Amino acid sequence: MRLSQYLLPTLRETPADAEIISHQLMLRAGMIRRLAAGLYSWLPLGLRVVQRVEQIVREEMNAAGAQEVLMPVVQPAELWEESGRWDNFGPELLRIKDRHERDFALGPTHEEVITDLIRGEVRSYRQLPLNLYQIQTKFRDEIRPRFGVMRAREFVMKDGYSFEADEASLDRTYEAMFEAYRRIFLRLGLDFRPVRARTGAIGGSVSHEFHVLADSGEDEIAFCTSCGYAANVELAEAAAPETERPAPAEDLRTVDTPGAYTIAAVSAMLDVPADRTVKTLFAEGRHGPVALILRGDHELNEDKAAAHPALGGECHFLDSHRIRQLAGAEPGSVGPVGLDAEKVAVLADREAAVLADFVCGANRPDQHLMGVNWDVNLPEPQAADLRMVVKGDPCPQCRTPMDTTRGIEVGHIFKLGAKYSESLGATYLDADGREQPMLMGCYGIGISRIVAAAIEQNHDQGGIRWPQAIAPFDIALIAINKKKSQRVADAAEALYGELRQAGYEVLYDDRDERPGIQFNDADLIGIPHRLVVGEKGLDRGMYEYKSRAEQDAQDAPVDGILDFLRSRSADS
Amino acid sequence: MRLSQYLLPTLRETPADAEIISHQLMLRAGMIRRLAAGLYSWLPLGLRVVQRVEQIVREEMNAAGAQEVLMPVVQPAELWEESGRWDNFGPELLRIKDRHERDFALGPTHEEVITDLIRGEVRSYRQLPLNLYQIQTKFRDEIRPRFGVMRAREFVMKDGYSFEADEASLDRTYEAMFEAYRRIFLRLGLDFRPVRARTGAIGGSVSHEFHVLADSGEDEIAFCTSCGYAANVELAEAAAPETERPAPAEDLRTVDTPGAYTIAAVSAMLDVPADRTVKTLFAEGRHGPVALILRGDHELNEDKAAAHPALGGECHFLDSHRIRQLAGAEPGSVGPVGLDAEKVAVLADREAAVLADFVCGANRPDQHLMGVNWDVNLPEPQAADLRMVVKGDPCPQCRTPMDTTRGIEVGHIFKLGAKYSESLGATYLDADGREQPMLMGCYGIGISRIVAAAIEQNHDQGGIRWPQAIAPFDIALIAINKKKSQRVADAAEALYGELRQAGYEVLYDDRDERPGIQFNDADLIGIPHRLVVGEKGLDRGMYEYKSRAEQDAQDAPVDGILDFLRSRSADS
Repeated sequence: MRLSQYLLPTLRETPADAEIISHQLMLRAGMIRRLAAGLYSWLPLGLRVVQRVEQIVREEMNAAGAQEVLMPVVQPAELWEESGRWDNFGPELLRIKDRHERDFALGPTHEEVITDLIRGEVRSYRQLPLNLYQIQTKFRDEIRPRFGVMRAREFVMKDGYSFEADEASLDRTYEAMFEAYRRIFLRLGLDFRPVRARTGAIGGSVSHEFHVLADSGEDEIAFCTSCGYAANVELAEAAAPETERPAPAEDLRTVDTPGAYTIAAVSAMLDVPADRTVKTLFAEGRHGPVALILRGDHELNEDKAAAHPALGGECHFLDSHRIRQLAGAEPGSVGPVGLDAEKVAVLADREAAVLADFVCGANRPDQHLMGVNWDVNLPEPQAADLRMVVKGDPCPQCRTPMDTTRGIEVGHIFKLGAKYSESLGATYLDADGREQPMLMGCYGIGISRIVAAAIEQNHDQGGIRWPQAIAPFDIALIAINKKKSQRVADAAEALYGELRQAGYEVLYDDRDERPGIQFNDADLIGIPHRLVVGEKGLDRGMYEYKSRAEQDAQDAPVDGILDFLRSRSADS
Repeated sequence: MRLSQYLLPTLRETPADAEIISHQLMLRAGMIRRLAAGLYSWLPLGLRVVQRVEQIVREEMNAAGAQEVLMPVVQPAELWEESGRWDNFGPELLRIKDRHERDFALGPTHEEVITDLIRGEVRSYRQLPLNLYQIQTKFRDEIRPRFGVMRAREFVMKDGYSFEADEASLDRTYEAMFEAYRRIFLRLGLDFRPVRARTGAIGGSVSHEFHVLADSGEDEIAFCTSCGYAANVELAEAAAPETERPAPAEDLRTVDTPGAYTIAAVSAMLDVPADRTVKTLFAEGRHGPVALILRGDHELNEDKAAAHPALGGECHFLDSHRIRQLAGAEPGSVGPVGLDAEKVAVLADREAAVLADFVCGANRPDQHLMGVNWDVNLPEPQAADLRMVVKGDPCPQCRTPMDTTRGIEVGHIFKLGAKYSESLGATYLDADGREQPMLMGCYGIGISRIVAAAIEQNHDQGGIRWPQAIAPFDIALIAINKKKSQRVADAAEALYGELRQAGYEVLYDDRDERPGIQFNDADLIGIPHRLVVGEKGLDRGMYEYKSRAEQDAQDAPVDGILDFLRSRSADS
């Protein structure tokens, strides 16, 4: 491609409204342009990357036995009513009416449509399993779209769905998809990690997320370097404490803590470490109020709390008014001592339950209790895993201290079980002629998000540093001052032909720009290999070569340039 | 692909609700399934064809210097208001509101979005021309979607847009796109014809449609076998009559024509050929009522009438009430004689204007006039080309009698001029530093419609007959009774591997079905080449080969099968 004819509007300045580096660089490198909130046009350079990602995903899905289909973007409301999600999905589901006033939705996901398709085609266990996927533009009406294509309203997604006759078959497909995803992210050249994850709005029992690791990632991942355990901290299990609760050593006493309403303030005022204090949160699930007790230095994991039978699947925090009614004080001064067991259940994180002689709010304004002990000053609590894991926590599998890292979720696989097949009546006849609901799995990859995540992970001061496999071009070819030197112009033109002939995708900077601008643009857009044609080099029978990953350029022989490049590609 | 694991739900029966053969065959061959009115899911076999078409289109667009982009499906209303199409486009534009109650549309076309993009990026004539395209799912809320994917609400389209500094540049791009389209349809292996066309809702001055020729086509095309002139009959020019008007020979007389209100009835009752009668239609444009006079055997072309200055761009037919006011009689008995020139203009088609001694309605119930002559019984009319051309009309370029054929519109290219760039303010600075509106062209191809059109053109009793280039698979491989013969099973398996190794896309029918079902399915889905592995053939060292285009099968040697296939591919 000749740059003089290519729509590649690079920007020198960082756009003011772009918060994260990938969004900034995608705008600056002329990959995308904003049309409206959360809606982006992909310019030619950006689309090339999207298509390279798509192609790798497609090849690996096909190799794993999945079959590509394409379902409509616009979906009839009736199917979403059948599954129950028309009411449950929330305003991210953009609901529309056609010219006949019939209700439709813009598809953010296709469980209903594919289940409807398959219930019409599959009758017998002999037709199972089936594993279908599509690569498609999806729409989610995010309330606050941001970070460019990372959290856009329209995005390109690979979504796949499998239909199975039994659990063993679902396990096999799930495993095959897990392995296909590993291969995909390996081929993409990204540093990634599969982690256990919660199932969220899609539903189901087991799920794994695939994260591209990057400091800017929205998700925190806990992982064990010893046994390989890895989970989103939203889900990661906190290992049970190994130590027993110490025997009580102090007496209960009330202390004044004027103006200290946070763990940090109380801890400082009383000179007690945060891990000897507890925090008390009042929430409600399906069975009345619950006081959730955590060690002062720990954070509540709402999913874990909601999943506890005491809450029964939901976790809503109470407002100050109701807390005052239950505890007699405002948040900041509340604690578990003296709560009316008839009115509020007490549920303690396992680490809070093994504390002795701890500090908590006194349920009176500006006072705290010290020397509090379970079973002495208040009843023995129900204990459960309620907290977010933190760096250094023992691995729940092998107890090695865990590390944490940040990641960008770019893939998610789920065992859905019979959730959709039951509500939509997708059944088959088993070998004994009995009607059974199909079991399902669902397997997503955020194609456009991968492009942004790849940049978050692979950039430097100069711009993007594409992994070879998804770079929009293989080689940036720059002619220096070709307007002044016919020899350079001719040599660059010949090299452009030679490289393309050899199968390289080449972006030939044939503009009459200053070399500094040409070099900066090449760095910005991040092509892995750069070849420069200039007078001085040609005098010596040399081009100048630089890898995007390296600081320094080197000579590359005019004769034998293809051999040279092959050796460099092998390196990289 | 092994058929036993492939989602290919073929149907023996013709689906009752499918009116045209391509829709029937696409359902029967398991290519598509209906989700809702005008919304279809593409199953694996169908999507393979879509993707083959896409790939050919993409390669030829790239080769012609166009650059691929991807714009959002959801478009902000503001841009459509700027262009004036928010109000003008009609209910095919599906208007939606997002969660913040902001107006958007589902994109049926992207002139506004691309013009908005380019007005933000292009400043100078040096950045022009630019030719951008995308391949994307589009939405048009058709009032009565039908014929399967032929007139669906969601469809896959290639839409391209060029931006030019001057007319000469627009001409060059238009010509390049015309040639690219020719190459695309040639490569697709379709019998097609580019024709001059009207510009319709997209606007602009010049346009050509590309039609796939098929008896079932909705459009009629007039073409000249001598000079190559071809046009949609909606646009095709009727050559001016070569003969002068004969001198009047008869006297005007009134005759009773009780109950004869059609040309056919009047012609029969009076024993006068239809081409000696005239029909009179009353219409109104922007400048008051006009009586449109056509020879009895000709049909009005409303576009031509609307385009005449007497109507000024619009053509609405008057109702019976107003016709009675103007002519004194009902339609069926009206004519041009005695009309009040103050109240109604008379505009005659050129063929009607050269008639002498003709028949027309008398403007009295159940009476007609005979022996009517212009300039004798009524004033000399304004004459213009108002009619649809018919088979046998002289070519407007070379006067050879024209033929007509039917076609399916699958491509349409337009010179838009400054229509969108002016309303949206897409300007550039020319070489003299003056601000100018860019000129634009727009270039569409209906990808999913091509799939249906290819079937309309290429099918027989047995099913589809894919052109090689877009066939979903190259070879249908059938193992006969492999359950009973391990030798057949092994040979078929080995051949499957050998063919794939050689680069063929193979659909291997490894099902334990009766041979008749296997053969019928292979014919139905229309794979160009069929290889059968059976006991009897293997005894003689032979497979059985049949081309989908031929009736009879022939032997194909087990040893040297690849050479055999190469020779057959060369034939086809």
